[in-house]
Amino acid sequence: MSLPSPTLQDCLTLDQHDPLRPLRAQFDLPEGVIYLDGNSLGVMPRATPARVAKAVSQEWGHNLIQSWNTAGWFALPQRVGDKIARLIGARAGEVVATDSTSINLYKVLSAALHIAAADTPHKKKIVSERSNFPTDLYIAEALCKERGYTLQLVEPEEIGSALQDDVAVLMLTHVNYRTGAMHDMAAVTALAHARGILTVWDLAHSAGAVPVDLHAAQADFAVGCGYKYLNGGPGAPAFVWVNPRHTDRFWQPLAGWWGHAAPFEFTPDYRPAPGIARYQCGTQPILSLTALDCGMDTLLAAEPLGGMAALRRKSLALTGLFMQLVRQRLHGHGFGIATPEGEAQRGSQVSLTRTEGAYAIVQALIARGVIGDFRAGDGHKHPDILRFGFTPLYIGYADVWHAVDQLHQVMDSSEWRDARFAHKNAVT
Amino acid sequence: MSLPSPTLQDCLTLDQHDPLRPLRAQFDLPEGVIYLDGNSLGVMPRATPARVAKAVSQEWGHNLIQSWNTAGWFALPQRVGDKIARLIGARAGEVVATDSTSINLYKVLSAALHIAAADTPHKKKIVSERSNFPTDLYIAEALCKERGYTLQLVEPEEIGSALQDDVAVLMLTHVNYRTGAMHDMAAVTALAHARGILTVWDLAHSAGAVPVDLHAAQADFAVGCGYKYLNGGPGAPAFVWVNPRHTDRFWQPLAGWWGHAAPFEFTPDYRPAPGIARYQCGTQPILSLTALDCGMDTLLAAEPLGGMAALRRKSLALTGLFMQLVRQRLHGHGFGIATPEGEAQRGSQVSLTRTEGAYAIVQALIARGVIGDFRAGDGHKHPDILRFGFTPLYIGYADVWHAVDQLHQVMDSSEWRDARFAHKNAVT
Repeated sequence: MSLPSPTLQDCLTLDQHDPLRPLRAQFDLPEGVIYLDGNSLGVMPRATPARVAKAVSQEWGHNLIQSWNTAGWFALPQRVGDKIARLIGARAGEVVATDSTSINLYKVLSAALHIAAADTPHKKKIVSERSNFPTDLYIAEALCKERGYTLQLVEPEEIGSALQDDVAVLMLTHVNYRTGAMHDMAAVTALAHARGILTVWDLAHSAGAVPVDLHAAQADFAVGCGYKYLNGGPGAPAFVWVNPRHTDRFWQPLAGWWGHAAPFEFTPDYRPAPGIARYQCGTQPILSLTALDCGMDTLLAAEPLGGMAALRRKSLALTGLFMQLVRQRLHGHGFGIATPEGEAQRGSQVSLTRTEGAYAIVQALIARGVIGDFRAGDGHKHPDILRFGFTPLYIGYADVWHAVDQLHQVMDSSEWRDARFAHKNAVT
Repeated sequence: MSLPSPTLQDCLTLDQHDPLRPLRAQFDLPEGVIYLDGNSLGVMPRATPARVAKAVSQEWGHNLIQSWNTAGWFALPQRVGDKIARLIGARAGEVVATDSTSINLYKVLSAALHIAAADTPHKKKIVSERSNFPTDLYIAEALCKERGYTLQLVEPEEIGSALQDDVAVLMLTHVNYRTGAMHDMAAVTALAHARGILTVWDLAHSAGAVPVDLHAAQADFAVGCGYKYLNGGPGAPAFVWVNPRHTDRFWQPLAGWWGHAAPFEFTPDYRPAPGIARYQCGTQPILSLTALDCGMDTLLAAEPLGGMAALRRKSLALTGLFMQLVRQRLHGHGFGIATPEGEAQRGSQVSLTRTEGAYAIVQALIARGVIGDFRAGDGHKHPDILRFGFTPLYIGYADVWHAVDQLHQVMDSSEWRDARFAHKNAVT
């Protein structure tokens, strides 16, 4: 705390010497905006408009159905999946980009319960975190009701003690969407396996944000999101991975023709494709999937510069700088920091807490061109949150300095108390 | 059969007097191609490239997350759904455009089984057609296995006698993807209801192709496809409708946050939204959904010209002309017609059968710029099929004449026996 507060000049110098700085040129960042919401919707790669236009006018418009073969539409979920695999410690052929995160979670959780029912039929519980992203809990709730399981929700510090003998599946989001707190995937998975419990990981806030090594962690199942750190565009398809030791044991109930071993034989009986292909269901939205393909290329462009390890170093430096500046420059303004201090315990976002005015402060910041977002608390254990995501592909050190400076001005001027910031619209 | 064969001049005259002819200008049809495969992938509307480009560069690229509100992304599934509703005899607010047909079928079939389990718990069967589109059967098979039901597959003429007291749900595709045969939705639904059986209709080859009136038929559930007659682009999202008498009784297991009554309250417990919104699950692919919105506009543009009734009149004229020309000009070339003769019994496609060479003939036709497709048979009851879809929005009478003329040349010249047409690639 006795360190001098970094100056704008310090930050500009850091940007100058940032080996990842060239990656920023891959993106079309709106003028006058500091975008700290890539954890909600990643920014648009410069390559995307032309690539999507080609998919629309040439592949669809001109070549029509032939593009299923000639433009490789059939294999696009696998091709994009292979790119995602490189970010998450999976191998080529183990990931497909398809459907939504919620639907993919239904698939893997369903498969996990099939396996648990076969191997450990006495286990009748799924454990998850109370502050997991709600859609994950809804999907688990639906499957529990169908299959006669109980969903037990715990606080993060209670996970270890909750892994009792009656637990079949532990379902966690690797990096918490509210606080940015990160689980130790390998340690938690080892703990679960020691008690005969399967693990399902949601990588929505991890893939492209922090290094993930699913094989090293010996994880069982994983899903994740295409439109956050993967820069795939609004509502981009999600992805799904299954550890090869499980893939061919069962199949999932969303057993549509794209997961069939021979979809164009049009046989009346389902015969699951070998491998991850059986986690596909119906025809995929090719235009959105094409945009996701472009988004993935922006991450793979980091590989010659050190890949996820280098991105992680910069991400930690950015979030560390933000926390330092908030502590030093916003001292006395009533902010808390919900994100863990320890580098191994946090993802690529920082969440601030404030008992009053969090929503209005976010709105006042947005009016000044600094885009973060607001997540409502529950009024007691979980406070309201001001959420700021730092995407090292396109965010720089000076951006962080300016963001905190703007927040400082919002607080000093009390402009956030202005009535125009008070009204809660739907937020994203 | 003694009528004279229509000439090209006759067909050009029909095109000249066709009140729907102006609708063709809405599409970008590739030069030198007669596209009779709109039942597989509809052609690109002229408006789509600019509209998708705007969604990419302006809504996403420039406005970023704000577009969830300002560009109306949140409501897009409902807005497109309301347009689809006008084609299928549903009301505004009863349809959402979302996910894939297979996934939507899982949702409605699951809900139908919930209702059946509550109202008629002794009924333990789903009946469908053996030649239904296979993905529908795969989904039903998966749900049967999960819920302890049996899937009984019958031929179309056996449906009436199959509707016994142990049947809970009758699941049919309204227009058969192979033969183009169409069920009488109202009559079949009435028959099913008289025996306490719920009906699930797949409108993949009906919506935008033939008039559908779900309310008049008192149907229970329906799903359909966005990328065929709705011209929504490759893999466009599908749609789902539930009769309001059922919608709020249960919810479906793909219970993600977009189907929650208040998704942005982030509550850990699922509370289903009222109405069809509960049939949504996760975040939707906005770029692909935007293209579907453009596709729907091409159909709504027919409303001042008589809408689906006028499109149907032209569709019947086109398919009728095709069958007449095939009979007259291709007599003795070994083709059969699998599509029913009766106007009330057929959709907007014509399927030819041939015991030998169907695949090669389709390939030879494609090489001449007439695009239809091939569907393999099972070698006995269901023969190989040459499939031709007639989309009255953009196909004219002279197109039909030229298509048959080209087919005539392919047969007369025996060029289909050329080795280059023999190899079966993956077909769509």
